[in-house]
Amino acid sequence: MIVTLLTDFGTRDYFVGAMKGALLSVNPEAQIVDITHDVAPHDVEEAAFTLLAAYETFPAGTVHVAVIDPGVGSARRAIVVEGAGQLFVGPDNGVFGHVYERLGRFRVFHVVKDRFFRESVSATFHGRDVFAPVAGALSTGTHPHSLGPEVSDFVRLPFAAPFQRDGSTLLATVIHVDRFGNCVTNVTPRDLGEETIARGVSLVVAGREIRTFRRFFADEGGATPEPFAVWGSAGLLEVAVFRDSAARVLGLGRGSEIEVQFTRAS
Amino acid sequence: MIVTLLTDFGTRDYFVGAMKGALLSVNPEAQIVDITHDVAPHDVEEAAFTLLAAYETFPAGTVHVAVIDPGVGSARRAIVVEGAGQLFVGPDNGVFGHVYERLGRFRVFHVVKDRFFRESVSATFHGRDVFAPVAGALSTGTHPHSLGPEVSDFVRLPFAAPFQRDGSTLLATVIHVDRFGNCVTNVTPRDLGEETIARGVSLVVAGREIRTFRRFFADEGGATPEPFAVWGSAGLLEVAVFRDSAARVLGLGRGSEIEVQFTRAS
Amino acid sequence: MIVTLLTDFGTRDYFVGAMKGALLSVNPEAQIVDITHDVAPHDVEEAAFTLLAAYETFPAGTVHVAVIDPGVGSARRAIVVEGAGQLFVGPDNGVFGHVYERLGRFRVFHVVKDRFFRESVSATFHGRDVFAPVAGALSTGTHPHSLGPEVSDFVRLPFAAPFQRDGSTLLATVIHVDRFGNCVTNVTPRDLGEETIARGVSLVVAGREIRTFRRFFADEGGATPEPFAVWGSAGLLEVAVFRDSAARVLGLGRGSEIEVQFTRAS
Repeated sequence: MIVTLLTDFGTRDYFVGAMKGALLSVNPEAQIVDITHDVAPHDVEEAAFTLLAAYETFPAGTVHVAVIDPGVGSARRAIVVEGAGQLFVGPDNGVFGHVYERLGRFRVFHVVKDRFFRESVSATFHGRDVFAPVAGALSTGTHPHSLGPEVSDFVRLPFAAPFQRDGSTLLATVIHVDRFGNCVTNVTPRDLGEETIARGVSLVVAGREIRTFRRFFADEGGATPEPFAVWGSAGLLEVAVFRDSAARVLGLGRGSEIEVQFTRAS
Repeated sequence: MIVTLLTDFGTRDYFVGAMKGALLSVNPEAQIVDITHDVAPHDVEEAAFTLLAAYETFPAGTVHVAVIDPGVGSARRAIVVEGAGQLFVGPDNGVFGHVYERLGRFRVFHVVKDRFFRESVSATFHGRDVFAPVAGALSTGTHPHSLGPEVSDFVRLPFAAPFQRDGSTLLATVIHVDRFGNCVTNVTPRDLGEETIARGVSLVVAGREIRTFRRFFADEGGATPEPFAVWGSAGLLEVAVFRDSAARVLGLGRGSEIEVQFTRAS
Repeated sequence: MIVTLLTDFGTRDYFVGAMKGALLSVNPEAQIVDITHDVAPHDVEEAAFTLLAAYETFPAGTVHVAVIDPGVGSARRAIVVEGAGQLFVGPDNGVFGHVYERLGRFRVFHVVKDRFFRESVSATFHGRDVFAPVAGALSTGTHPHSLGPEVSDFVRLPFAAPFQRDGSTLLATVIHVDRFGNCVTNVTPRDLGEETIARGVSLVVAGREIRTFRRFFADEGGATPEPFAVWGSAGLLEVAVFRDSAARVLGLGRGSEIEVQFTRAS
């Protein structure tokens, strides 16, 4: 069974290796797949975006472990999320916030049964002592409700979805800037609808209007330095500049607000 | 079945994770092996060298995926290469240029059958939507000729092999500078022949003659600062300086020309 | 069977990929787990610490390969260590020094049977040509004594264990500074004993006394800038400062000496 790992542990230290060992000690047959271990330390939002953009490609039954856990050692809960045939294990701090929006229907369980943990649980390394062995158990077929009670007061992520201001404006937020400077928003095609998209959408970014939508990055007219909007490969609306950084050109960063203007069918 | 991955996606973003998921969705039993994801962005030649130096150690049946793809979204072709019992999947942009030279005998197929692609193919992320699922199919036994027609006008790489100027000189090219500054050329022992090598070979590099051949880097006389030639671990002629950077000392970089002078048996 | 890899090869070059191929050519079923490839070049002590902190989480039967090998090409030996049901393969240069201390009981074999090596062994890349194929053989059940004779004059690591100066003082050494600046010492709870720990221990670090022991990093009183001692997640005594670098605050680095003062039961 496939188990993916997503952490901010970096790849220099022993942390990732120790997690993998703890997981394989529970399920030696687990097929471990690294998503990334280079999330900026404690950056829950970056991890949440990365998981959103990666998880859907995996087959049903996959267990995703996300350990970005600034609150380790405090009272924050360990949770398991079940949805669309996949499972997610990690701290209850919003790291699954974008996944919740995408899944729509899902259940969340508070992990309390410590017989699924490592024999001696350290106060500082729950990746190894809690999350990895719990993922190992899930990958062998343990059902989430064996781990603890279902809960409904889990932590969501602000700006996981755009806010509909009125009949012609969505207030969107930049949730990720990729290494090329492309600014990924929280807007999906579903938020606008095919018909609205077909009629045309424009953006207002930092007081500047963007009317150009492209089908892809190297599209016709690609060589112009004008910012444009594009449906990026994570399935989200992006703002980009051809061979330049939209974040730099437009002064955008994560959390920047973007207005999406459109007309509904009359 | 083993599937290796070689990309310029870096390890911070979701790209590698999403590719792995797409691959495992086609073949959940695939054994994924990362070669590297840290090729310099869009550096086809560096990727071509890395693949050359790594692929031969893998067992027959391995599928190698190389996604260094500055032309994604344009008309460049997706191809599969079959040779020496191994398979290679990627864009037709020269990334397999060194492999062609080493294989000698091989076949190239143009991948056109989109039923092997992901359901919805983005314009920007063929690693996930085309190459990963095609590799998944190949790793389950799909034959390359099921993917599209054989072609002969595939893109080769300049300087993949040295140029024989005359009976006593090869014009070689530096195809890689490693992180220690060792300069790897495109010359294999086969290009010279055992007897020629035994009689002695000298190099002319930037107007400077190098007569010293060493068996390995820490060889006798190792502590001298003189540049020397050595058969490196990629099976190619390298120029090195003991505990220093030959690239810096000699002012060499990728693409630098080196004359290899020798005498043939009379 | 699980085979872990720990090297200083970095992840940009072909080295790791070539090692994995060589290993899989011997045992295509091997489940390869990367511990890290980002050990500082030639830093045997850092590798020794990382292996110590990671290996115990793996299940019995795991083969650990450690290739930090500044002496490649010289006369240093290749060895296999067998202990606690696990196997370790690498150069005899101290990289297993911390593991020896932790294992207590173990056997060391000098690898000499070159029929387990790659067909042609380069002088510079024993990771691919010696260690990977030997690990492949071990992972298929080859017994270490098939590889060569048992030896007792293997290389240990200085400061792998603290030195007991007298009945009330251990001389400890910082063996690792993590990326947060926490200073990990070579002191285990076993070195002091539960009763001694319960009665209270203080440290003298750079002329400064540290009396505060915390249960974990974010413990009560966490927000004070005072250095404190803590049993870290590697099972070793650490010196830390809340949300700051103890290494910087106290001027410590690897090799720094720390006095551990205690009173024995009378």
